Amino acid sequence: MAQLQPVLVDGQWRPAKNTGVFSPLNPATRQPTGEVFPISSREEVEEVIEAAARASEALLGIDSEARARFLERFAGRIEARRAEIVALAHTESALPVKPRLDEVELPRTTGQLRQAAAAARQGSWTLPTIDTKAGLRSFFAPLEGGVVVFGPNNFPLAFNSAAGGDFAAAIAAGNPVIAKANSSHPGTTRLLAEEALAALKEAELPAATVQLIYRTDHQVGQRLVSHPQVGATGYTGSRHAGLVLKEAADRAGKPIYLELSSINPVLILPGALRERAAEIAGEFTSCLLAAGQFCTNPGVVLLLKGAETEAFIGLIVEKFRAAAVGTLLGEGVEHNLGHSVAALQQAGAELLVGGAAGGGTGCSFQNTLLRVEGRRFLATPEQLQQEAFGNASLLVVADDEDQAEALCRALEGNLTGTLYTDRAGSDEALYQRLAPILRRKVGRLLDDKMPTGVAISPAMNHGGPYPATGHSGFTAVGIPASLRRFAMLQSFDNMRPDHLPPELRDQNPTGQLWRCIDGAWTEGNVPAKT
Amino acid sequence: MAQLQPVLVDGQWRPAKNTGVFSPLNPATRQPTGEVFPISSREEVEEVIEAAARASEALLGIDSEARARFLERFAGRIEARRAEIVALAHTESALPVKPRLDEVELPRTTGQLRQAAAAARQGSWTLPTIDTKAGLRSFFAPLEGGVVVFGPNNFPLAFNSAAGGDFAAAIAAGNPVIAKANSSHPGTTRLLAEEALAALKEAELPAATVQLIYRTDHQVGQRLVSHPQVGATGYTGSRHAGLVLKEAADRAGKPIYLELSSINPVLILPGALRERAAEIAGEFTSCLLAAGQFCTNPGVVLLLKGAETEAFIGLIVEKFRAAAVGTLLGEGVEHNLGHSVAALQQAGAELLVGGAAGGGTGCSFQNTLLRVEGRRFLATPEQLQQEAFGNASLLVVADDEDQAEALCRALEGNLTGTLYTDRAGSDEALYQRLAPILRRKVGRLLDDKMPTGVAISPAMNHGGPYPATGHSGFTAVGIPASLRRFAMLQSFDNMRPDHLPPELRDQNPTGQLWRCIDGAWTEGNVPAKT
Repeated sequence: MAQLQPVLVDGQWRPAKNTGVFSPLNPATRQPTGEVFPISSREEVEEVIEAAARASEALLGIDSEARARFLERFAGRIEARRAEIVALAHTESALPVKPRLDEVELPRTTGQLRQAAAAARQGSWTLPTIDTKAGLRSFFAPLEGGVVVFGPNNFPLAFNSAAGGDFAAAIAAGNPVIAKANSSHPGTTRLLAEEALAALKEAELPAATVQLIYRTDHQVGQRLVSHPQVGATGYTGSRHAGLVLKEAADRAGKPIYLELSSINPVLILPGALRERAAEIAGEFTSCLLAAGQFCTNPGVVLLLKGAETEAFIGLIVEKFRAAAVGTLLGEGVEHNLGHSVAALQQAGAELLVGGAAGGGTGCSFQNTLLRVEGRRFLATPEQLQQEAFGNASLLVVADDEDQAEALCRALEGNLTGTLYTDRAGSDEALYQRLAPILRRKVGRLLDDKMPTGVAISPAMNHGGPYPATGHSGFTAVGIPASLRRFAMLQSFDNMRPDHLPPELRDQNPTGQLWRCIDGAWTEGNVPAKT
Repeated sequence: MAQLQPVLVDGQWRPAKNTGVFSPLNPATRQPTGEVFPISSREEVEEVIEAAARASEALLGIDSEARARFLERFAGRIEARRAEIVALAHTESALPVKPRLDEVELPRTTGQLRQAAAAARQGSWTLPTIDTKAGLRSFFAPLEGGVVVFGPNNFPLAFNSAAGGDFAAAIAAGNPVIAKANSSHPGTTRLLAEEALAALKEAELPAATVQLIYRTDHQVGQRLVSHPQVGATGYTGSRHAGLVLKEAADRAGKPIYLELSSINPVLILPGALRERAAEIAGEFTSCLLAAGQFCTNPGVVLLLKGAETEAFIGLIVEKFRAAAVGTLLGEGVEHNLGHSVAALQQAGAELLVGGAAGGGTGCSFQNTLLRVEGRRFLATPEQLQQEAFGNASLLVVADDEDQAEALCRALEGNLTGTLYTDRAGSDEALYQRLAPILRRKVGRLLDDKMPTGVAISPAMNHGGPYPATGHSGFTAVGIPASLRRFAMLQSFDNMRPDHLPPELRDQNPTGQLWRCIDGAWTEGNVPAKT
């Protein structure tokens, strides 16, 4: 048996205090990758939390420049070890090396770290607010205690718990991270954490600013997110496991930001189909890329009854049949996809194509399309809104516009919602009827574009109403907004000038920090009293 | 028996569908005020929620100017009915007519409504963010469904569920309000809701934008905060009742903003005592105003052992003994205060003065001071941090600076934390040791000032870590930040220009809306593409 991999606790790679072990599989071969990882005990988790709490306090006295430097050094180190990281991520996830891992996801990861560095350095994410008359000044500041990050299976780099979006946001905001690796790519996470530790030393940050464990049992996981010395948790993953953690965190009054599941409804209005059915079919089918394993994969397509709709459905059935079947991220994904497709069928959906495991290399499932009539959907909307994570989508055909509106109203919270309309304007009246309803069910509303891509932009919202996430006021992607999840609002009242944090003193510390002074945003100083 | 007061549902004052009744008491006489109010049934609550949900959808199509007009008309109408409102609030709360209700709290209430109107009109609270390169635009927008507001007992006007801070914030952000009156001042709440309804008509807003019920049983209350069609809840009140509601809301994934309890530690460092003990004693004792019934009343004072401390304690004991005993807000407050003082004594605190019910007119409790040594406090920190809401405070005397630091570390989350230091600078080293610890336990840190006043300022934070509130990222006081509790983040991706909300179009809708365009805050338009 291979040697048990160490955990990273308080700056040391050390043998785990574990209660068990696990061995990840290569999804393309269904064979073990050859590495063995520990399941951490409660004792180990307590040590990690305490070390993070000490680092959290130390970070309060270290300026943001050091955090920015760390994030940049870390990005550089990931690039320097690029081939090894990409190769192991490929072994563990079966995602293609090129273009996906090497040309898309790794640059996204390092770009995100550098954006987070810039945000930390500039500081405007803290929304400094100064009321000169009342003698009050406020901003967002780091939490007390470390931030726990649970990364998902589907982005081994860009959402990795030791290098991805939540990691970058938590560190940039001034918090240490306790990374809980996703069990499907623990080796990739270890490589990233190795570089993080080296970069911490270079930037002279506390060694416990980044720690790594691989897995815990449920009870220890609940302790982790509800511990008095933990600041907050970021979790991306299955709804079931997420809700177990949410309950524990909620009971303890600890913030937990969840990205749980989303079926990302796409409404294709009749004029759009008449105008460009083939083009839209192509866009839709391109979502089979990476076997549809995206948080924002279009899982439900809403259409209105008619000849064009039937022709469109025929077209995408053909395309789904013809498209190569991708390898899934693991046996769990394969199993769950089969389970979800069966559940949708039990709830009344009809199978148009696919529906069975296999068809590709290793873990795989046939490209699958299901169909259900609007009336049927409305009878059991909850069952028909189960996420089928992977290369499967459900088409819902509404009888008429009234039913289409009713379907929109029956939708749960989602990350995205999309409306395709014709350029000529014949869909406009229906758009105006449906968009206001859809808009409040989703975190991001799109016109004429599949929702799969998630740009790292200040105006991105990768969020949405429950059950897509745990709170519709926050985004997991998009800097600087994503940083504010891992921060607390602090107000300073009647403070002596030298007792104020630098961001809130009269003089703008860099001349580049945006602050709202007496109601106006400015990069200037607080005006001298007259 | 007096006639049962009606409820306000969907624009109509109508007989309640009730399961019981209650009769509030005048705390100054312990006699019924003469009015009788209904306990609403689940059926009634469902009707209220549905009407609010319809109003929520209608409000999405009405511009913010109408909401601003409503808030201003409402403020004007409160002023026009001032004498009657103040008189009933006095009867129900026993708070003095002058200066408190008439000269302080009523103007605060109308000022707050007008500030909220200005925020709604200007719109900058929505943090519009535009990324011209990525084609993404985001802002904060109203929730789907009404906002439930549970007001506290201690501010019958300024935190009233039908006119106070949460009400103003929720409406300004574009949400209808379901007001759940505090059972200690239902009549005052009814008068306010009458004026709100009239103002709604004048402003031509949906009639269900403001609704009022008075009380429910626990189960119906839990349904109210967890209903699928409710957007969020704002609650200010006791920790116990708040946590019951929090659990129900959390389970349903519904945001709930809680202000639960706070002991507001005040640390008086040795140099400050040497320099100005009498002055500080005066400031501290002035917190007996309104019988200490403030969320930010200084409930715990931390001192360091020494002769000056003993002299200071002697001074405030005298002042507490000499000060008039105020009337409490009701029998519940009187009972709970007795219970809390007894619990503190059981946990090892020694009674210095007071400790028994009575001493004032009607519901009252002697001005009470307790003392405990630092070592004892550290042995059972949870028991000794129970809030004693009213005119009671606990003095904690630390052996030395190390113990003072340990005491700071043992503090739970609070709304405020205060440090008094000397002007000469002899306390500075200890300040630098304690302030960073205290800072992250509290929402607002103060220098040399009692925390009782809560200015309505953009830089105020009336919030803090759990258990002071449910989430340290939000404030209940301070416009515009308080509005963002009742909003969701929405991103618009690839939208046709005329499909965008006005706030996110190229042209700044008013020339006064602050927007972050490509990283810079501006009141200008989106620059034309070159």
